[in-house]
Amino acid sequence: MAKQRVLTGITTTGTPHLGNYVGAIRPAIAESQRGEFDAFFFLADYHALIKSHEPAKVHQSSREIAATWLALGLDTDSTTFYRQSDVPEITELSWILTCVCAKGLMNRSHAYKAAVQANEENGDDPDFGVTMGLFSYPILMAADILMFNASKVPVGRDQIQHIEMARDMAQRFNHLYGDTFILPEAVVDDVAVLSGLDGRKMSKSYGNTIPLFLPEKKLQKHINKVKTNLLEPGEPKDPDSSTVFEIWKAFATPAEAVEMRQKFADGIAWGQAKKDLFELINTQLAPARERYEAILADGEFLEAELKKGAEKARAQAAPMLAKVRKAVGLAAFQ
Amino acid sequence: MAKQRVLTGITTTGTPHLGNYVGAIRPAIAESQRGEFDAFFFLADYHALIKSHEPAKVHQSSREIAATWLALGLDTDSTTFYRQSDVPEITELSWILTCVCAKGLMNRSHAYKAAVQANEENGDDPDFGVTMGLFSYPILMAADILMFNASKVPVGRDQIQHIEMARDMAQRFNHLYGDTFILPEAVVDDVAVLSGLDGRKMSKSYGNTIPLFLPEKKLQKHINKVKTNLLEPGEPKDPDSSTVFEIWKAFATPAEAVEMRQKFADGIAWGQAKKDLFELINTQLAPARERYEAILADGEFLEAELKKGAEKARAQAAPMLAKVRKAVGLAAFQ
Repeated sequence: MAKQRVLTGITTTGTPHLGNYVGAIRPAIAESQRGEFDAFFFLADYHALIKSHEPAKVHQSSREIAATWLALGLDTDSTTFYRQSDVPEITELSWILTCVCAKGLMNRSHAYKAAVQANEENGDDPDFGVTMGLFSYPILMAADILMFNASKVPVGRDQIQHIEMARDMAQRFNHLYGDTFILPEAVVDDVAVLSGLDGRKMSKSYGNTIPLFLPEKKLQKHINKVKTNLLEPGEPKDPDSSTVFEIWKAFATPAEAVEMRQKFADGIAWGQAKKDLFELINTQLAPARERYEAILADGEFLEAELKKGAEKARAQAAPMLAKVRKAVGLAAFQ
Repeated sequence: MAKQRVLTGITTTGTPHLGNYVGAIRPAIAESQRGEFDAFFFLADYHALIKSHEPAKVHQSSREIAATWLALGLDTDSTTFYRQSDVPEITELSWILTCVCAKGLMNRSHAYKAAVQANEENGDDPDFGVTMGLFSYPILMAADILMFNASKVPVGRDQIQHIEMARDMAQRFNHLYGDTFILPEAVVDDVAVLSGLDGRKMSKSYGNTIPLFLPEKKLQKHINKVKTNLLEPGEPKDPDSSTVFEIWKAFATPAEAVEMRQKFADGIAWGQAKKDLFELINTQLAPARERYEAILADGEFLEAELKKGAEKARAQAAPMLAKVRKAVGLAAFQ
């Protein structure tokens, strides 16, 4: 039996941080190495254009994310790892889906409705600052998925609606033009969330992240900035309300977690706990960081890896698009 | 000095009729033969998908329109004649423009507003039956134009707004990413309008057309169906309120028009006037009709002509898209 095809997009805005690593990258790479699925991973750089009009940042983010995944051991032979913008078939399919997608469907998108609500609360025009990119990106996302007949799409809860929309477009297309697309299913991924420097969820938008591959000295400085309370050395500390312990747990073995829990009860000094945390993370990440730095500097290697992925992706996309084009009446004259 | 680039799209729904010929095709081909402009003509088949979900009709219409223009003498060496869907760069540019286009701009599109108004008058949801294709096609149209840095776009009055929208997107892009696109100008084309069988404007949507290349017998039958009044042979007739005379004038020399005007005053029978009209049109169209039938049957020739055009178009589109991609941050890693 063929393996299930699982597709995951990574939006290329920002630099990967510990939260991304623990919640998304590490489990995805582990899964890819188990090889249970036919895994597609892509850099969603067409999507990045919605969120960022800063070309240097979009470009640098793609580069850092690609280097990160490769440095962490993504197997690009057994998986398909590509840049969305290297597969022009996707925008073509996106336009074709645009023609079967009801506007009412987009009106109901959570992301769009949230933007409208924020505008209304500010007394602005409901569509103030809303681009057509924001409004119609569920169509591009449907094209990402349907292009490859991906059956499973791991998503956060906030993205379930987009998978439902992709199903809706696929059904509408199949109804109008005959069976063409598999209906994708969302696999809800209750991703482990990591807290950031200030104790809120680690997120680029809060400016509280610890970038994944910081140089050693900077990593230490960042970890030293993790918020703690005022308890003195010797006073027992509560691990379950501590960001230091939360991050420790995300990197430690179960035995190491038990050990640190005891140290908290014994009143470990915050300085010592952070030193231990730095050592733990640094030891784990150092080999990958070295690879990351080498890969990041090697544009030729990065480009070759992504082109290899794009070729594999296009080998699937081209016959699929040909089928879709024929179905809608765009075939060559005979 | 380089010739001005003039771009014209032809939506591939329906079969060309006498109204299309007189109003659009004949003047365009004459102009192309004068060679004053760098003329781009394209079959807008991505646009056709908005209006028609009938693949056989979309396909047949493309074929008939291509065969029509070629049979009438479009010079495909001096012009660029291509099928929109053979230039995938266009949908890619369309997505990139989507990311800089304000949703508010699309809200104000006449075509969309007309649909909303009709729905509201019927007591329906404002977006009832509105697809994202209808809502966002001004973006695809902007991509059609900006892709080739066309400076002049001949349009009917109802399309002026779309050119303004294309200018708006071009300006927004240039502002965000640096000078990239020429701002296109609308050239308002007050196209000669021809009446149809029932005396209203000849239009596919009224079902009153005379297809351009009907076989001789059928052409005669259609012309016989042109609506006339009840005046008997011998009674003087008013040429200026007669569809028969209007069509006559569109095909006749000035001298022939004067002559027919006299015959109307002299009380020509409707039957005779229609017979004369048939003879006039049939004589003019017969050689092109013969070429049309041969070309229509020759898929290989049609395909080769369009592929030649697509190659010329893509030779312009590829470097332009590369420039755009670089500007927004999608360049290859180095």
